[in-house]
Amino acid sequence: MLLDEFPSPPMKIVEIDVRDSTGLILAEDISSLRNVPHYTASAVDGYAVMASSTAGATTATPVILGHGSFSWVNTGMPVADADAVVMVEDTSLDGTAGEDDEKIKIFRCHTQGENVRAIGEDVMNGQRLACKGDRVTPALSSLLLCAGIERVSVHPRPRTIFIPTGNEIVSKERWLSEEKIDAGLVVDSNSEYAASIFSVWGYPLDVGPILPDDPDTIAGAVSRAVSEYDLVLLSAGSAKGRRDHSADIFSRLGRMIFRYVRMKPGRPAMAAVIEGTPVVCSPGFPMSCAVTLWSLVYPLLKRLSGARNGIDDISEAIGSAVTTEAKFMVHHSSPAGVAEWLRLKCADVEGNLFCWPLSAGASVLWALAESDGIAFLPEKTLEQPRGARVTVRLTRHVDFSKRMLFQGSDDPAVALLVSLVRQRGMDFAIRTVGSMGGLAALGRGEAHLAAAHLLDPANGTYNTSFIERFAEGRKWRRKLIFRREQGLIVARDNPKGVRGFSDLASGGIIFENRQPGAGTRVLFDFMLSQNGLTPSVVPGYNRISITHMEAANKVASGVADATLGIKAAADALGLDFIPIAHEPYELVFSERFDEHPASEIFMETLESGEWKRTVLKMGGYEWP
Amino acid sequence: MLLDEFPSPPMKIVEIDVRDSTGLILAEDISSLRNVPHYTASAVDGYAVMASSTAGATTATPVILGHGSFSWVNTGMPVADADAVVMVEDTSLDGTAGEDDEKIKIFRCHTQGENVRAIGEDVMNGQRLACKGDRVTPALSSLLLCAGIERVSVHPRPRTIFIPTGNEIVSKERWLSEEKIDAGLVVDSNSEYAASIFSVWGYPLDVGPILPDDPDTIAGAVSRAVSEYDLVLLSAGSAKGRRDHSADIFSRLGRMIFRYVRMKPGRPAMAAVIEGTPVVCSPGFPMSCAVTLWSLVYPLLKRLSGARNGIDDISEAIGSAVTTEAKFMVHHSSPAGVAEWLRLKCADVEGNLFCWPLSAGASVLWALAESDGIAFLPEKTLEQPRGARVTVRLTRHVDFSKRMLFQGSDDPAVALLVSLVRQRGMDFAIRTVGSMGGLAALGRGEAHLAAAHLLDPANGTYNTSFIERFAEGRKWRRKLIFRREQGLIVARDNPKGVRGFSDLASGGIIFENRQPGAGTRVLFDFMLSQNGLTPSVVPGYNRISITHMEAANKVASGVADATLGIKAAADALGLDFIPIAHEPYELVFSERFDEHPASEIFMETLESGEWKRTVLKMGGYEWP
Repeated sequence: MLLDEFPSPPMKIVEIDVRDSTGLILAEDISSLRNVPHYTASAVDGYAVMASSTAGATTATPVILGHGSFSWVNTGMPVADADAVVMVEDTSLDGTAGEDDEKIKIFRCHTQGENVRAIGEDVMNGQRLACKGDRVTPALSSLLLCAGIERVSVHPRPRTIFIPTGNEIVSKERWLSEEKIDAGLVVDSNSEYAASIFSVWGYPLDVGPILPDDPDTIAGAVSRAVSEYDLVLLSAGSAKGRRDHSADIFSRLGRMIFRYVRMKPGRPAMAAVIEGTPVVCSPGFPMSCAVTLWSLVYPLLKRLSGARNGIDDISEAIGSAVTTEAKFMVHHSSPAGVAEWLRLKCADVEGNLFCWPLSAGASVLWALAESDGIAFLPEKTLEQPRGARVTVRLTRHVDFSKRMLFQGSDDPAVALLVSLVRQRGMDFAIRTVGSMGGLAALGRGEAHLAAAHLLDPANGTYNTSFIERFAEGRKWRRKLIFRREQGLIVARDNPKGVRGFSDLASGGIIFENRQPGAGTRVLFDFMLSQNGLTPSVVPGYNRISITHMEAANKVASGVADATLGIKAAADALGLDFIPIAHEPYELVFSERFDEHPASEIFMETLESGEWKRTVLKMGGYEWP
Repeated sequence: MLLDEFPSPPMKIVEIDVRDSTGLILAEDISSLRNVPHYTASAVDGYAVMASSTAGATTATPVILGHGSFSWVNTGMPVADADAVVMVEDTSLDGTAGEDDEKIKIFRCHTQGENVRAIGEDVMNGQRLACKGDRVTPALSSLLLCAGIERVSVHPRPRTIFIPTGNEIVSKERWLSEEKIDAGLVVDSNSEYAASIFSVWGYPLDVGPILPDDPDTIAGAVSRAVSEYDLVLLSAGSAKGRRDHSADIFSRLGRMIFRYVRMKPGRPAMAAVIEGTPVVCSPGFPMSCAVTLWSLVYPLLKRLSGARNGIDDISEAIGSAVTTEAKFMVHHSSPAGVAEWLRLKCADVEGNLFCWPLSAGASVLWALAESDGIAFLPEKTLEQPRGARVTVRLTRHVDFSKRMLFQGSDDPAVALLVSLVRQRGMDFAIRTVGSMGGLAALGRGEAHLAAAHLLDPANGTYNTSFIERFAEGRKWRRKLIFRREQGLIVARDNPKGVRGFSDLASGGIIFENRQPGAGTRVLFDFMLSQNGLTPSVVPGYNRISITHMEAANKVASGVADATLGIKAAADALGLDFIPIAHEPYELVFSERFDEHPASEIFMETLESGEWKRTVLKMGGYEWP
């Protein structure tokens, strides 16, 4: 609908120097003004001769030419009074060059025109070189120069302004400089994202000052912007809140093209035409803003710049050069009737390229930065069972043959390995699914490595019984990489006076638990039963954090009073720690792990002093 | 070998503002300095409530909350004294907002935390956000801003200088401004290409002044450059000519890494290390320069900027986002033991994606500008028979479903259709193979359209007998699109006094002929026999031009004295024309042509006044 409002070709045309035209779209057909080359030129270094004089020449029966019947030419020099050039490699020179006694032996018969570039060989005077609508590439701009073209008519890059709005939005300068930012305030990251992606796309962008949620102020700014810019982007104010005025402003100033797009994230996006200028409002959440820029703004920028829209617009917008097909590692339910932009991480395990979605929240920017690629699931996509194939547009270059996939228990020391393994030329991806989830993934052939610290309540041993259950007779190998200290994590100075598990049942303490299958939750359940307690007496037992840091962070921010976790997490956030157990943290991998190109580097990294020293500083770790 | 000389990571590291870091490679791991969000935030517009107060709510049995037990929150506002937010869509408000009589009806039961963003939901304080070696994307730079990161350590973009050399090279300013350029002079198009492609790649490039072929001058410039730049590119002087000094200079100033690369074009490329700085010499021919930049310089730029090299380097260097597989339409002999960079044009005919190489000459820039993509044939590739599959890295976006492939007789009026068809949203590719070649291609299913003007000497009729022969019983359709005037083309004012075919046998006149299978050559042979002449008496009979313009251009530049061709070609170059025949130019296509998405647009374009008016101005055309 948006593109239909602005049919090609755009009206603006400027004449500019060819040298400034790279990337722009031609507004005219262009024909050569010259023959290139404009003279008969030698294509090699050698001797210009008449081809007929080389008749019959072979290595065994060379032809000998005397002074005056040949002349030296460098590559590109004019060939006059001759119709072929003999490469210097096919000759030998006798006598004194340039003197009467000089002669050359020629060892190969040449045909008329051999090693000679005819006039107009590259392009001919009058030859059509490019069509209206073609993009000026580096090759074309240098060709136009050769063809004597100095200036070309092109469609200029559209000028765009991005107008951030919102009482809660603070500038990045203030965000970075102030020690304490009040609750409710949010940094203007959308302007940063827009400026950054416009620069990647090669389009100019001006960013306006942050406007408060005042309809007249915003309307005034939009009115001014449509007369100065080719495209106006308004950020936020698109939802149904009491401070959301964008739709009213668009309707008041111009004609709404659409409000709401059947996509997730980005649903509240809207577009209007105001005084002939397209105006797009992107929702305020960072992912919604990004998706609006990709899906609505990028195709429109192409249209306004005179380029042809195509099926590659999505890939271009997100910066994806390579598309691949991967299998969903988990069941994914795509919402009915809504297209979805999924941020995915991928890994290849034994020839199967798997992918799994990172958090889908519109407010979450991390998932986009962390993802390997984007899947665009059309409206009609619904349930995607585990193993379903999906097209992934890769947004970074990953050599999947070098990437190991670790699934298992969360541990910050293991997380440190990612950077160290990468610096050694290999790659390492972590999917935190708990100890039990890791063993199950290994069992299904969906991981190269798992890690577990699972206490068997029946006998007090770690891991063995669980590994046997999931290995189903396969010869998995184990490697104890460290022991780590688990304990109760409480606020600094332990304001609620937690001393042990029995305090968790007192009613006044909210516990932050871990997800089912996590070794730490297994330990917690074991400790509860050791202390004669049941889950029902622990407030918060059903609250779930996926990682030690996430759980500890709940305590640090006052959302919970206690959690069970490792000492390193407590230390990182300056929390108090009540030791409970030293547990073995074991890597588990199949007997085929050695065949992975990264296995050797990975094992070396595990033994590296660089890693161990950093981990020891984190606290609570011991080496066997 | 070149990359091995400069192992990663590079030594240079600078600390810069995050906002300037997009596209650069991180020189450090980065962890968050903040929780994002840093407060408990509402994820929607609605009412903050205690989840427990919504227990049992349904559309039929809403829960009613009174003043004080709920509070309005906009998206992003802090949620205090509440643990869930009810979306405004799931409520209705009674009474006066903010007054004692206000109450809301809630129609859905909510769980603790629903529509609430926990502290650190996006990223947690201390969470690893990016690793050393990661590229800063728009998503990452805005994430870093949210996470309170102001400055990052990155590897700066390497600084490069391009030094053009050669006595024969003239600046683009002089090339464009001077009316007459002497034979032997060549424009400095390589600097233009380098500057343009560096800007596409996103790397800075300085271009030095053009240096003469003087070893000391060039050596001095290289010596200065290696101390000021991270990478020095020397253009030309790489071959074995008497003015080629690059190899000597490299050996004198530093250590040669290699000379000659087993690739075509670009074989004379060389690289050296001079005072620790990499120096690459690209050969002077435009295609050789381009290939050297793609294959040697781009991977090195990535290495020097701290990026990881990968299998995508080639595609990135040439600007290819999409790779496809196509079938060779013609036999292609790739040279033994040499990797080849082929410039290809592609078209899809009835589900077969075909490709054909454009001119392979290192001196030809047109083929690169005109190509749809590049195939990189490795060293071991030898004979590629017709139909062999080749991987094509597409360098432009082509919607092959919209592209018709025309193979057949050369005609400048048909060439004009390309731009007109494209402006109508479809696409049209021409392969000039002569009338006979076009009918044969149509017969093999390798063209959508053919065109012929073939005179049958047996009965003086045009096309019919030839079409029957190639159609082999299929019901091909014909459309007479125009008649055109053929005649002898001679230099302006006819200095050699050519009056007819008998003059061509006089001995003093060199004739430029067309390729076997061209309708114009068939006509020439017919006219010779009508005049009682044989080919052997016509000097130049074996000379071959592929198009009317090419043949006429030979006459215009004095390489030949006469050719047979259409009046439009003579008129375009201001040559004299001696009329011989009016011939019908007919389109030929299969009965399935109507099914092609572009067929309707194509037929409309053939009838358009826009096209006919332009063609009539060219001269020598008549409509039936």
